[in-house]
Amino acid sequence: MRRGRGRPGYDQAAVLRTAVELFNRRGYDATSVGDLAKELGLTKSAIYHHFASKDDLLRLALADALDELTEVVSEAVGDAAEGGAYDRLREVVRRSVEVLVAHQPAVTLLLRVRGNTPVEVEALKRRRWLDEQLAGLVRAAVAEGALRDDLPPELVSRLLFGMVNSLVEWYRPDGAFDAPAVAAALAATAFDGLLRR
Amino acid sequence: MRRGRGRPGYDQAAVLRTAVELFNRRGYDATSVGDLAKELGLTKSAIYHHFASKDDLLRLALADALDELTEVVSEAVGDAAEGGAYDRLREVVRRSVEVLVAHQPAVTLLLRVRGNTPVEVEALKRRRWLDEQLAGLVRAAVAEGALRDDLPPELVSRLLFGMVNSLVEWYRPDGAFDAPAVAAALAATAFDGLLRR
Repeated sequence: MRRGRGRPGYDQAAVLRTAVELFNRRGYDATSVGDLAKELGLTKSAIYHHFASKDDLLRLALADALDELTEVVSEAVGDAAEGGAYDRLREVVRRSVEVLVAHQPAVTLLLRVRGNTPVEVEALKRRRWLDEQLAGLVRAAVAEGALRDDLPPELVSRLLFGMVNSLVEWYRPDGAFDAPAVAAALAATAFDGLLRR
Repeated sequence: MRRGRGRPGYDQAAVLRTAVELFNRRGYDATSVGDLAKELGLTKSAIYHHFASKDDLLRLALADALDELTEVVSEAVGDAAEGGAYDRLREVVRRSVEVLVAHQPAVTLLLRVRGNTPVEVEALKRRRWLDEQLAGLVRAAVAEGALRDDLPPELVSRLLFGMVNSLVEWYRPDGAFDAPAVAAALAATAFDGLLRR
């Protein structure tokens, strides 16, 4: 990774990481490149050495989250996907939890995007594609007879991935539960249910 | 409701409603009382006629959400609460969905609070109390034998109310599902599970 000219010790990835943290803490609109420079102890021109604009930082941060989630979903719905729809859905849930835990700040930023800028509009478009694929996978799992058919698949998909997405709000990496434990409890809750049998 | 002196047609509730909408759209920190006045076509002094400060607007908006949620939870865990823990938990889920749908903008604002100001710190404290009561109710429903005991109750509570809270991100009042439909599908998913039996 390239080092900043202004000061050694800050590379592009570190600047991006701090930018995401600031955007999440203060809001994207309320954060200026000057704020970011101040937080890092750099000059604004040192930031602009790495990134063309604040928009560019947002674009890269959102791509970090979107590329990972797109890979997970594409593998589950693409031509090369193997196995039943339910098995693939359960695997998407598991891997989505992993992505959210590993990329929590970037996914948090992604989930708060409201479409105020062209970069945000493009991110929302990619999120919509993901949502559609997930709803299709739920429909397929109902159609193959694995999932109950008395609930609207689109609503089920919203609830299921709403539960997954809620992780960004409460998950703490230093807390009691690691990603596999969360993924297992989430899948058990959603697919098997909480009632004792 | 009091009418603003500056211009007829805007009352206190309407100003607050627009403030919450702006805070959600642009972020609290990025929104000034001047922005709010401009959005409403009022003068800043007309706003200050109704509200002491921007902080005061935030406090009232968060209280709107917190008071409703506190009432729902208090009735389920208080001394006068009747019935088993599982029945009360299921009722809390149902009524929480109703509150989220009826107060979606205020709850959205509440769920984004990060503790940057004393008003936010106080709101986070009240949220934490709610979370603790809900986790206690899940524990009680496990202890009475209604819910499975192979998952950590605290994690189950996070997932369950994470699914409820996710509503603010995707629910559309003009969409295909009303509050009772969402509440029923959510309870069916979480308690009974999605697998066909």
